[in-house]
Amino acid sequence: MFLARVTGSVVSTQKLDSMTGRKLLTVEPMRIDPQNRDRLIGVGRTFVCVDTVGAGQGEMVLIVQGSSARMTPETEKLPVDAAIIGIVDTVNVESKTIFSARD
Amino acid sequence: MFLARVTGSVVSTQKLDSMTGRKLLTVEPMRIDPQNRDRLIGVGRTFVCVDTVGAGQGEMVLIVQGSSARMTPETEKLPVDAAIIGIVDTVNVESKTIFSARD
Amino acid sequence: MFLARVTGSVVSTQKLDSMTGRKLLTVEPMRIDPQNRDRLIGVGRTFVCVDTVGAGQGEMVLIVQGSSARMTPETEKLPVDAAIIGIVDTVNVESKTIFSARD
Amino acid sequence: MFLARVTGSVVSTQKLDSMTGRKLLTVEPMRIDPQNRDRLIGVGRTFVCVDTVGAGQGEMVLIVQGSSARMTPETEKLPVDAAIIGIVDTVNVESKTIFSARD
Amino acid sequence: MFLARVTGSVVSTQKLDSMTGRKLLTVEPMRIDPQNRDRLIGVGRTFVCVDTVGAGQGEMVLIVQGSSARMTPETEKLPVDAAIIGIVDTVNVESKTIFSARD
Repeated sequence: MFLARVTGSVVSTQKLDSMTGRKLLTVEPMRIDPQNRDRLIGVGRTFVCVDTVGAGQGEMVLIVQGSSARMTPETEKLPVDAAIIGIVDTVNVESKTIFSARD
Repeated sequence: MFLARVTGSVVSTQKLDSMTGRKLLTVEPMRIDPQNRDRLIGVGRTFVCVDTVGAGQGEMVLIVQGSSARMTPETEKLPVDAAIIGIVDTVNVESKTIFSARD
Repeated sequence: MFLARVTGSVVSTQKLDSMTGRKLLTVEPMRIDPQNRDRLIGVGRTFVCVDTVGAGQGEMVLIVQGSSARMTPETEKLPVDAAIIGIVDTVNVESKTIFSARD
Repeated sequence: MFLARVTGSVVSTQKLDSMTGRKLLTVEPMRIDPQNRDRLIGVGRTFVCVDTVGAGQGEMVLIVQGSSARMTPETEKLPVDAAIIGIVDTVNVESKTIFSARD
Repeated sequence: MFLARVTGSVVSTQKLDSMTGRKLLTVEPMRIDPQNRDRLIGVGRTFVCVDTVGAGQGEMVLIVQGSSARMTPETEKLPVDAAIIGIVDTVNVESKTIFSARD
């Protein structure tokens, strides 16, 4: 899995029937800044995910990829390879809280 | 999943029997421009996808990869690892519409 | 899937029993040249694939990866993660034929 | 699989039900330093893994990815694509022990 | 699949029960040198693989990844995503033998 920030959303009306009603969000994967391990930085890539937990714009989330993205009640048998499975409260690195959703 | 633009097509007559009659399109993955988050830019890679929604040259589409690309009525049991599952109308990032199919 | 050119072959006598008699080819993935969209260029990586269509040295082929590489009569249940499933006749980008097997 | 060092942890209260009670750790993949093959260095990426062996901060671990991350008693059927399956005692390269957990 | 050279081994005593007794080797993926297609060069990455064929330090091997790594008698149902499935005798590129195990 990886950490990512929700950056936006995708609207597609002409799509596979089984995808009707699924919320599609764009996310940017994050990593611990190798230069300053006190913060998370974006890696500059763009993924599209199905949301299973009600995540919103700007939130830090946990993403699962591949066949495992189909291991949720909402996504089983869907043609999806990435899903948001949690909203992140805190990320703690080397005894410091480097991300907190409250900030 | 990821966003991509349809760039062209591939013709292959000598191929696995199960692939007969499948439309194969080339696509270029897109990402939100890290320098200017108001637009999408290509990442310079080339994928070949099976089209399940009638996408055409130049259209922005949604791509699913891996075993999940077989989770459509048209692709199940096929040796394909990438499929177009939707045509994108809009991409909305940080409250702006940065892509619209109408433009 | 991706486009690739067949560059060579691999011989391995000491191998898993189920792999006996499988033709193993080396391929180099190709992409549309971002600087000159009229041609394909190699990306410099080396993959080893099982051939299911009788491809030969120098030919442009279509490669499938992952569990989908096992979705062919020749490869099901084999420990293979990449297979050649077609020989490419033409690649057509933005209304031009940028690759033709006849050339 | 790959070698990684445990760097921290992730707390998520709003998540998929099946993920309740799973310990989520952040790890940094390691590689043999190409310039000095006597040591391991971090590659600067950040993964989130489910821990199945009781790993702790700073430990060197073995990570499995993809559908294989679900092949443990603790993770089967979970939406996880990365799991810690071992704590590393030593890494031995070209007849030298380049990592030992005792040091 | 990809070509790799065996560089070393990993010892882990505290691990998932099902992994007991499995030989874990570190390998470095190889590619045809884009500057000099007469030789293979390392790509500088480090993978850990289960050995199914009795490979040793310094040998050139064939690696399978992902769920396909579980398609061997020794690895089925194991949490492994990479396995050595053959020892390479020769690699032949553009009519030249660029690698031979005898050398």
